[in-house]
Amino acid sequence: MTNPAPASARRDLADAPLLTAARGERPSRTPVWFMRQAGRSLPEYRRVRQGVPMLQACLTPEIVCEVTAQPVRRHGVDAAILFSDIVLPLYAAGVELDIVPGTGPVVESPVRTGEDVARLPVLAEEQVESVGNAVAALLGELGNTPLIGFAGAPFTLASYLVEGGPSRNHERTKALMHGQPQVWHQLMTRLVDSTLAFLRVQVAAGIDALQVFDSWVGALSLRDYREYVLPHSRRIFAELADVSDVPKIHFGVGTGELLGAMRSAGADVLGVDWRVPLDEAARRLQAAEPTWRAPVLQGNLDPAVLFAGWDVVREEVRRVLAEGQAAGGHVLNLGHGVLPDTDPDVLSRIVEFVHAETTR
Amino acid sequence: MTNPAPASARRDLADAPLLTAARGERPSRTPVWFMRQAGRSLPEYRRVRQGVPMLQACLTPEIVCEVTAQPVRRHGVDAAILFSDIVLPLYAAGVELDIVPGTGPVVESPVRTGEDVARLPVLAEEQVESVGNAVAALLGELGNTPLIGFAGAPFTLASYLVEGGPSRNHERTKALMHGQPQVWHQLMTRLVDSTLAFLRVQVAAGIDALQVFDSWVGALSLRDYREYVLPHSRRIFAELADVSDVPKIHFGVGTGELLGAMRSAGADVLGVDWRVPLDEAARRLQAAEPTWRAPVLQGNLDPAVLFAGWDVVREEVRRVLAEGQAAGGHVLNLGHGVLPDTDPDVLSRIVEFVHAETTR
Repeated sequence: MTNPAPASARRDLADAPLLTAARGERPSRTPVWFMRQAGRSLPEYRRVRQGVPMLQACLTPEIVCEVTAQPVRRHGVDAAILFSDIVLPLYAAGVELDIVPGTGPVVESPVRTGEDVARLPVLAEEQVESVGNAVAALLGELGNTPLIGFAGAPFTLASYLVEGGPSRNHERTKALMHGQPQVWHQLMTRLVDSTLAFLRVQVAAGIDALQVFDSWVGALSLRDYREYVLPHSRRIFAELADVSDVPKIHFGVGTGELLGAMRSAGADVLGVDWRVPLDEAARRLQAAEPTWRAPVLQGNLDPAVLFAGWDVVREEVRRVLAEGQAAGGHVLNLGHGVLPDTDPDVLSRIVEFVHAETTR
Repeated sequence: MTNPAPASARRDLADAPLLTAARGERPSRTPVWFMRQAGRSLPEYRRVRQGVPMLQACLTPEIVCEVTAQPVRRHGVDAAILFSDIVLPLYAAGVELDIVPGTGPVVESPVRTGEDVARLPVLAEEQVESVGNAVAALLGELGNTPLIGFAGAPFTLASYLVEGGPSRNHERTKALMHGQPQVWHQLMTRLVDSTLAFLRVQVAAGIDALQVFDSWVGALSLRDYREYVLPHSRRIFAELADVSDVPKIHFGVGTGELLGAMRSAGADVLGVDWRVPLDEAARRLQAAEPTWRAPVLQGNLDPAVLFAGWDVVREEVRRVLAEGQAAGGHVLNLGHGVLPDTDPDVLSRIVEFVHAETTR
């Protein structure tokens, strides 16, 4: 059984730029971090991971702690993000799966029927005790840098389970969703239960913010998103509403059509990929909910542009910063994760540039 | 040297539903065809292709003719689409590439510098004489069913060449585009030259319509699309403007942000994937260009939904038909190609249902 740290374990970082921006207040500078900043772009990461399978690494507190802290040390980013994997809660709960290098998560027995769903284990908090321990260790390690907790959203988890692995078209997932909606909703309910257990362990251990990744949800139409996904994503944020001092970020790729609905799921900050400029995203979200406060947005530099040379990168950062002014707050980030071949020096220069341009 | 059929080779199919709808007039029924209808979903296709590599098949008129006609015979679709491959013009021009089953096109020497671009061969019409011969043979085979010609758009071709194969993130392509814009534009110019040669052979041989596939263009932001792609896509349609009796269709996946710009490239019909409902697409396009006539749209059934059972499929078809009423014309199709595991009987039932519902 985990022995969750008391709520007072949470550090008082109220003035940290990330947390200030997430509250819709004016930070001392525009906070910047990068999705997948703890990863293969860093030689020090590749050294630590050598010979250690991904899921084993995610369950080893020393590795999680070291790898999570690496980009903070190297780049001076305004947040660490807990090193983990979207399928970790499934694996920890007992689902037989493996992360195959070059392929991604491969699930031994895909989940496609009501019986499969009934058999799907739900994560118990004690099964990810090591993740809580990693968080606790990181709080000491990170100084005043906030730590963002990590979880996958239920649609993306469901897709891996139903397809049996990564999928371009998600056809079995959509077939289940449309063809057996009751089974689908049962599956999503169990996945939310696991996601909540995973996040609660992190919250109890003292994370300062959290991000829920719905990486593949952009494969859905707005209609399907609203009917088959939104109620479940909403439950995640509703059940965590009591930890109001932990800002919640929600992100997906290719979500131009979904932004308004995704915002209504209840996160404080909405991540936007590179396809929709932040000023346009802000305009669209304000038009959708004119009575809400201006949205706080995260993004949205195209990670592929980081390969085009510094002069191009600098101008793109400048543009994203300018467009971000239209939002109710802006956390500078990429529009998707750092690509493995990215030159880490470019990431460091971006942080330096954003801080130089925006520090007040 | 090709001996292009005279312009009079074109059959008079002016009343065919596809061509009527493409002109923005009222067809006798809503035309329906499926992207990648000639493909692995059909057992008769798999038999013909057995042991024949893809590109060789595309250059063998008997195979092209048979495979192109198969879905017309089986499903009774309102159009045949020439069986081909996006990279065929490159291969025929002499670029060393292969289509690797399970992977896709693999280019021997990726194109990444000004020298690479200068060396890139441009297709000469006589290099695809066999494609013209296949078209000519098909005109007799197809009765009154229009034949849609086929070509890839320059961005998608460029991505294969620059990345050296299929790519999820297109980082080298975007690096070239942003980092060496002059080289990029030279590359795109050569690719348009090849695309035009490929299409002119098909036009001369008598195709009744044509579709330009920009499959991966949805990876771009609107800003990048306008600067790096649109001028080139526009040239394709401008240089084919003289064959005004051959309607032109333009399609890409994930193009919700690009629809207005893509329409301005100059095609008569715009393909829309399943992420944007057709009534919303029509509204968006009308708002972008209020003085233009209502757009003719093609799409946009989610190909993954075809796995969800007939009752679901029927209701989705009904919805797409209803939403298509908001456009200035509607060609029913999928929002992307037929997935290989699709049950072909579902495709036949869709055709039957669309005809029964819409025949006047």
